[in-house]
Amino acid sequence: MLKRTAPVFFALLCLWGPASITAMANTPEVDSPRSVILLIGDGFDDQHVTMGRNYLAGPDGTLLLDTMPIRGAVQVQTVDDEGNWVYVADSANTATTLATGVVTNIGRVGTGPSDEDVMTILEMAAAAGFGTGAVSTSSITDATPASFMAHVSKRICEGPETILGGEKYGLPFEGCYDDAKGNGGPGSIAEQILTSPVDVALGGGLLYFLEHLPDGQISLLNTAEQHNAAVITEPEKLLSPIPAEKRLIGLFAEEHLPVRWQGEDGRKAESPDPSWLNALDWRLGSVEQPAVMSCESNPEYGNTPSLATLTQVAIERLTATSQKGFFLVIESASIDKQSHERNPCGSIGEIAQLEEALNVALNYANQQQNTMVLVTADHAQAAQIVPEPSLYDAIPVPVYSPGKVARVRLDDGTIMRINYATNNFESEEHTGANVPLFANEAARDYVGTYMRQQDVFEAMARFLDLKTPTETDAL
Amino acid sequence: MLKRTAPVFFALLCLWGPASITAMANTPEVDSPRSVILLIGDGFDDQHVTMGRNYLAGPDGTLLLDTMPIRGAVQVQTVDDEGNWVYVADSANTATTLATGVVTNIGRVGTGPSDEDVMTILEMAAAAGFGTGAVSTSSITDATPASFMAHVSKRICEGPETILGGEKYGLPFEGCYDDAKGNGGPGSIAEQILTSPVDVALGGGLLYFLEHLPDGQISLLNTAEQHNAAVITEPEKLLSPIPAEKRLIGLFAEEHLPVRWQGEDGRKAESPDPSWLNALDWRLGSVEQPAVMSCESNPEYGNTPSLATLTQVAIERLTATSQKGFFLVIESASIDKQSHERNPCGSIGEIAQLEEALNVALNYANQQQNTMVLVTADHAQAAQIVPEPSLYDAIPVPVYSPGKVARVRLDDGTIMRINYATNNFESEEHTGANVPLFANEAARDYVGTYMRQQDVFEAMARFLDLKTPTETDAL
Repeated sequence: MLKRTAPVFFALLCLWGPASITAMANTPEVDSPRSVILLIGDGFDDQHVTMGRNYLAGPDGTLLLDTMPIRGAVQVQTVDDEGNWVYVADSANTATTLATGVVTNIGRVGTGPSDEDVMTILEMAAAAGFGTGAVSTSSITDATPASFMAHVSKRICEGPETILGGEKYGLPFEGCYDDAKGNGGPGSIAEQILTSPVDVALGGGLLYFLEHLPDGQISLLNTAEQHNAAVITEPEKLLSPIPAEKRLIGLFAEEHLPVRWQGEDGRKAESPDPSWLNALDWRLGSVEQPAVMSCESNPEYGNTPSLATLTQVAIERLTATSQKGFFLVIESASIDKQSHERNPCGSIGEIAQLEEALNVALNYANQQQNTMVLVTADHAQAAQIVPEPSLYDAIPVPVYSPGKVARVRLDDGTIMRINYATNNFESEEHTGANVPLFANEAARDYVGTYMRQQDVFEAMARFLDLKTPTETDAL
Repeated sequence: MLKRTAPVFFALLCLWGPASITAMANTPEVDSPRSVILLIGDGFDDQHVTMGRNYLAGPDGTLLLDTMPIRGAVQVQTVDDEGNWVYVADSANTATTLATGVVTNIGRVGTGPSDEDVMTILEMAAAAGFGTGAVSTSSITDATPASFMAHVSKRICEGPETILGGEKYGLPFEGCYDDAKGNGGPGSIAEQILTSPVDVALGGGLLYFLEHLPDGQISLLNTAEQHNAAVITEPEKLLSPIPAEKRLIGLFAEEHLPVRWQGEDGRKAESPDPSWLNALDWRLGSVEQPAVMSCESNPEYGNTPSLATLTQVAIERLTATSQKGFFLVIESASIDKQSHERNPCGSIGEIAQLEEALNVALNYANQQQNTMVLVTADHAQAAQIVPEPSLYDAIPVPVYSPGKVARVRLDDGTIMRINYATNNFESEEHTGANVPLFANEAARDYVGTYMRQQDVFEAMARFLDLKTPTETDAL
């Protein structure tokens, strides 16, 4: 956040509340709720869509999202510090573009390329009297949900301690100096979620809310009551009555929610093992491919609430919050995170979660026809479905991936081979393909078959009749 | 080809000709030509679409195909010899599915999984009185165009000598015993193209037509006149008057047509070069990334006719051939071939060719509104756009691709980095993502947002009111 733009931004924040609705937007009919449900599959590109379909429905079957009547492609947009195009994004800058319509730099959360705070569609919707929610299988302070609720220079500034910089994975990192409360800023992402207008925020991230405030006296969690927020950390509390006028923050894991599935015995993709002769000459010797694996339940998943449950709770509370409708963003976060970790079973389990959450969203949309349901991704990811065996299997030379490979057994006994080979590091790179867009019939007049990520923002804003950033800037 | 199905198939072939139109299909109005133009970008998945867009139009720009009003995804379908699903295809089996609606094994050309010949949409269209054409930047005997015009067990059986087996790249290969003329079969792909009803076939592949017939006396080329076919091999002959009643076969290269672009000084993707210290421990030392390259003209391209020119010639001849309309398949073949060779500039030049050919097709469709124009791919390919620099550039460890990398300079000076890392061999693997579908307004009632490749065949057959294979089998 740049301090110079803060006064304008906070002036806008002061407009929040029902009294200011008419000042911010033309209100649709009160008796006809109008809502947007945006589902983001993090890293959910066409390789992952197909992985999910092959595993969950078979190549002759259809995912629920395949049945949606509108399909398009969305160009991912990123610029560097000098404003030049960058061809591969991260979740922070792309979620910021989806949330604000502004194309920005990698790592930014709700801030433009000059570090200016940019109002998000969630904030605009709240200001216009809509209910608002964010649900994720990641920490709710993680880049994607955060970009709808907060404004910091760097995605790593998740809690009141983290924002001051420190060390992670043994490496020092800079915080977000100007954003820290002690420096007159709005605070870390967790602090901003507490002061944000969001009505429902459900996911993981307890760790960041347990961080202590700069005075060192109390953890952030203890300040929730001041902001009219009920914080729950046990899944069964989702069923307990919490007054509708309370904001609800659910934190069901220290960081990201555990994923539902893992590879057999916790295995991930592995390196093929060429013989010593092959190490001498690539045309000689043999290669041992990693053993086939099945997907199995992740023992750490336990009683983690599903994304569908969180979605259901969010929709129920939001329908009670505002008769006008709501804006809800839902993220299936670990398609990406598990692809970074080369765990196709983890990604596929998350795609199953996305499908279930989509089912909840479409059920609501079937009851309330002025509900736009969009499914898209923030960026493409590393995983590739590759031939099992190699296309060159008949050639008497050991052929194998230079990266890591998982050979996943499907229910019918066939094997789907997944390749991860974007780098030699412990975490794969994102990739730069355009990502899919799926939409329901209510979206037809608002979306195209080819859009840029900022066009997706525009479509949602138009659907809710919200003022876009350009119009807001003029206020 | 299986001999047991040959009599049925040849009985059907005998129905060709205007006299049999009414027996094969309900004829649309003669005064309103009804045509299908199918453009296949070989290997043209969303990574390649985005590579093309970024290079040719900029990430904020649009390709011509982005402006098409209908966009969907197509699931690629492949089975193994036992009928089990296989998750990555080749061009032969997928082109066969697009051409016939039958899901088959890798390497098959116009034959089903039991080696049975399956009538293609081009043959059905010809039998129903439509003009037919196939245009490609590959040899016209290569898998994709061949699958619309011929029926052999293996894609390698391109010429009368090749069909008998032999040696390629120093390795022995089996031919197609049952298909060979000497064994009572219909002959190689080139021989079948000569006897096929196709009105226009333009591309490369002269080599296979120069192969000698089993009697060893004359080359296949010399038999063209017997089949009412004019064969031209010089591009300027495309402009010379050739009687409309003649079939036209144009062979403008020995094998595939040279591609338009190459990497700077002929460079392709290269291996990053880690220091000796890094070879000892992956956390140490440094890495030298391949130097940035521009794309430049391929000096071998010379006066090669463009895909747009071939498309224009084909459409002009087909409109003269039949007032009823036509079926034309157009392949931009080397998106795939250059991706196998790790040459992104080669692929991008081919995407430019596809765009130009699409422009010709859409211009025709604008004049003749009952023209369905579809663009799709046969399968996904290896190339991935990866971050430049790595997402982990700030981490003090050398991070680099285990495969090969090309850092392509765009017109605005930015760099798009392309990764090829599906195997250690001399040719990359295909990949298994669903592929895009683009369609014009005339296709709206025939295509969906999600289809399988066999559904694309069905859509084209329905548009031309042709009998599908199931109906044909019943004859």
